[in-house]
Amino acid sequence: MQSMLWDGQSLSLLNQTKLPAVVEYLKCTDYERIGEAIKKLEVRGAPAIGAAAAFAFVLGARQSAKSDRLLFLKDIESVDGYLRSTRPTAVNLFWALDQMMNVIKEQSDRIELPNLLNLLEQKALFIAAEDKRVNHTMAEFGAALFKEPVSILTHCNAGALATVEWGTALGVIRQAFSEGNIKRVFADETRPLLQGARLTAFELQQDHIPVTLITDNMAGWVMKNKMVDAVIVGADRIAANGDTANKIGTYSVALLSHMHQIPFYVAAPASTFDFSMATGEQIPIEERGEFEVTHFQGIQSAPDGIAVFNPAFDVTPNQYITGIITEYGVLKPNYQEEIKQLKDKMEENR
Amino acid sequence: MQSMLWDGQSLSLLNQTKLPAVVEYLKCTDYERIGEAIKKLEVRGAPAIGAAAAFAFVLGARQSAKSDRLLFLKDIESVDGYLRSTRPTAVNLFWALDQMMNVIKEQSDRIELPNLLNLLEQKALFIAAEDKRVNHTMAEFGAALFKEPVSILTHCNAGALATVEWGTALGVIRQAFSEGNIKRVFADETRPLLQGARLTAFELQQDHIPVTLITDNMAGWVMKNKMVDAVIVGADRIAANGDTANKIGTYSVALLSHMHQIPFYVAAPASTFDFSMATGEQIPIEERGEFEVTHFQGIQSAPDGIAVFNPAFDVTPNQYITGIITEYGVLKPNYQEEIKQLKDKMEENR
Repeated sequence: MQSMLWDGQSLSLLNQTKLPAVVEYLKCTDYERIGEAIKKLEVRGAPAIGAAAAFAFVLGARQSAKSDRLLFLKDIESVDGYLRSTRPTAVNLFWALDQMMNVIKEQSDRIELPNLLNLLEQKALFIAAEDKRVNHTMAEFGAALFKEPVSILTHCNAGALATVEWGTALGVIRQAFSEGNIKRVFADETRPLLQGARLTAFELQQDHIPVTLITDNMAGWVMKNKMVDAVIVGADRIAANGDTANKIGTYSVALLSHMHQIPFYVAAPASTFDFSMATGEQIPIEERGEFEVTHFQGIQSAPDGIAVFNPAFDVTPNQYITGIITEYGVLKPNYQEEIKQLKDKMEENR
Repeated sequence: MQSMLWDGQSLSLLNQTKLPAVVEYLKCTDYERIGEAIKKLEVRGAPAIGAAAAFAFVLGARQSAKSDRLLFLKDIESVDGYLRSTRPTAVNLFWALDQMMNVIKEQSDRIELPNLLNLLEQKALFIAAEDKRVNHTMAEFGAALFKEPVSILTHCNAGALATVEWGTALGVIRQAFSEGNIKRVFADETRPLLQGARLTAFELQQDHIPVTLITDNMAGWVMKNKMVDAVIVGADRIAANGDTANKIGTYSVALLSHMHQIPFYVAAPASTFDFSMATGEQIPIEERGEFEVTHFQGIQSAPDGIAVFNPAFDVTPNQYITGIITEYGVLKPNYQEEIKQLKDKMEENR
């Protein structure tokens, strides 16, 4: 399953707000439409947002003033600023845009515009291809954690749909399943936007991986009844000490895992780490509109005028995380030190 | 707000499946329709189910064969059996039907049928009146726990709608609010049937008590952010050691409260205790259909054919419960001993 397809001129995004009822690709021919798709969650999932933003940058560069270098750079900054404003929590968005801006900074006064535009497209394609490669590597490290068949609980969607292809948490599950080590996956439906019910259940069903859908408030009871051996979730941003921002509800799942002595793993590419943030307390948490909570698939479920709290993410403190699965291996506590080493490896790899 | 109204011939039930969009009373003129309303959750909440079943019993007795005493008793047993089959977890249903059957057992061979039917109606009216009285007494004991303004989190609906009037957990909140000690209530929406969003938010809003609606998976994060000072929930059945069956998700809320050192209270009338069950492990847990999880108000949110786990209740072990608020006072650990004393008091009070 592909969350996005680039044809050289436009990016087609699988519209995730309509799944599973309707499988529909949105053809985006300008960067504003991709930005809108990010805001409206038509494309979501930290790695997928990063790749989509890179392609948006390519379109934005092509749309920018071509007559004058300074004007062009000014336009590019406005494209970059707009794309950065679309969602505040997932760091992969900023990471991908940094990659694109680096091409501009390093090349814009050395080569002609057509060549620069080509380089930008090559960079976006590389980011997307890397995402696929990284997911497969991560999946192998993650699957190696399971030596016998297990049941896994997951929250939200960290699957093919959250990435360019294959998935982070669900990538690990896909790999472990291919090795005969997945008995069943419990998918939290993940209110308010039901990414678990709509996307995770859909993805796993398509791949014939046994999946049981539960409401979020059943996770603790499923653990209490010994139906779950491990939890694997994705991440939107990981601080330098391992504190992890992910979809709202992840924090509760982590605490419940801790109380039931069930291992709790995060699966995320190295681009998810934000080394500039010492702890998770610094991670900005996006708050979204009340409509998502007062309505359920467009149908009102709460009285008019009711107050709502709707944080889209929460932060799980590092002490509740058993391991962080990356393409460089599985990090274990003490995270501070392990993440420092990860940063060094990433710099060597450049 | 009244969840039910008896006019001497029929029971009108506020249809809770349609709230808050539609305020509609179902006029039930036979016991089967009330049984159906219990099954379909048109009336729900342990104390409300008990009172509704008592009125259903009255109608069932009136519908029974009146020509022959033995035939009448056979019919009554069938009415009783049917009503007991409607929902398995809430013990108040069985408690109320026991009260009604006791009238039959004690009086049926001593008095004439018209007088017996009158006695049954008096008993049902007494059960409903007692429920109101008990809620107010409980509310006073509960409110006395709070000496200064607090924010409370609650799960599901243990309000006027779950009782005949006033409520158990929400009764305590109403009383504490009238004493100036409620800052705000956080209402878990309570999937799958959204009793928190549809009923608790509605009830509190009607009473001008500040309420913020959250999805179930936000409860932990709200606690982490120190927005909640205490949790109060209702109960469907309490074992002799204090283990408490309540709406699915209560167990998770209790564990999360424990980890954040937030007091967790259960508010329930003495009729909720099942002294025949030593621990919560013996309490039968109703599992309901998959449609509740895969759909909302008829709109599908999960792929066709997906497996679902849908327990309607869970059991919170006594060690996570700070106190159980009853009309006899607030029980504290050690519950085994306190519940034994409660039983003695109830027997003295007969």
